[in-house]
Amino acid sequence: MDMKALILFGHGARDSRWREPFDRLAGLWKTQHPNVRVELAFLELMKPSLEEAITLLADDGATDVVVVPVFFGQGGHLRNDFPVLLSDCQEKFPGMALSATPAVGEDEAVLQAIIEFSARAL
Amino acid sequence: MDMKALILFGHGARDSRWREPFDRLAGLWKTQHPNVRVELAFLELMKPSLEEAITLLADDGATDVVVVPVFFGQGGHLRNDFPVLLSDCQEKFPGMALSATPAVGEDEAVLQAIIEFSARAL
Repeated sequence: MDMKALILFGHGARDSRWREPFDRLAGLWKTQHPNVRVELAFLELMKPSLEEAITLLADDGATDVVVVPVFFGQGGHLRNDFPVLLSDCQEKFPGMALSATPAVGEDEAVLQAIIEFSARAL
Repeated sequence: MDMKALILFGHGARDSRWREPFDRLAGLWKTQHPNVRVELAFLELMKPSLEEAITLLADDGATDVVVVPVFFGQGGHLRNDFPVLLSDCQEKFPGMALSATPAVGEDEAVLQAIIEFSARAL
């Protein structure tokens, strides 16, 4: 049986407090979509890596994992590093369907929320 | 007379396509808030710098500039580099009221938009 799961993929940073919004995102997802497993994953400096997160989900029976890059812009990390990483993971988990969305910064509703946040600050 | 203005402040990247969402944000702001000047500014690798953006706004008569950090997490860049940068700018523009919001990733509505984007991808 197919079992979908979500990975919220961020850059990572040295300061552990940097991940707070990512932890909040995972919490919001769990509250609103309790039947779909979610894991965070980071490109660098934080754990788990993408491969580690996929392993966690595979161990729980996920067959179909969508990776959402929680980045604003699509620069070198998303255009070069990320596809290689994803393709390496796909090779290691041949039975799993891995896919990725564009960066969240491409989404009009995300941008609109930033505009409204800015307007409230003025 | 007071004249408010907005700076959307991003990290910057080597790949020029990285800034596309920032250009879209500035465009959305101009459409929705045509009476409040907006400039982008970047911490590194892209222009203008924060100081250059403030200079542009000062030249246009802005007296009160709110800087919105378009970052998810608040790590070293926002906790250490940014306050120093802002305080240096404040010294250079003593007649201007400079202030900053938390990172947009602290905003519940921004996080909720990311959750909804993720849910649509599954």
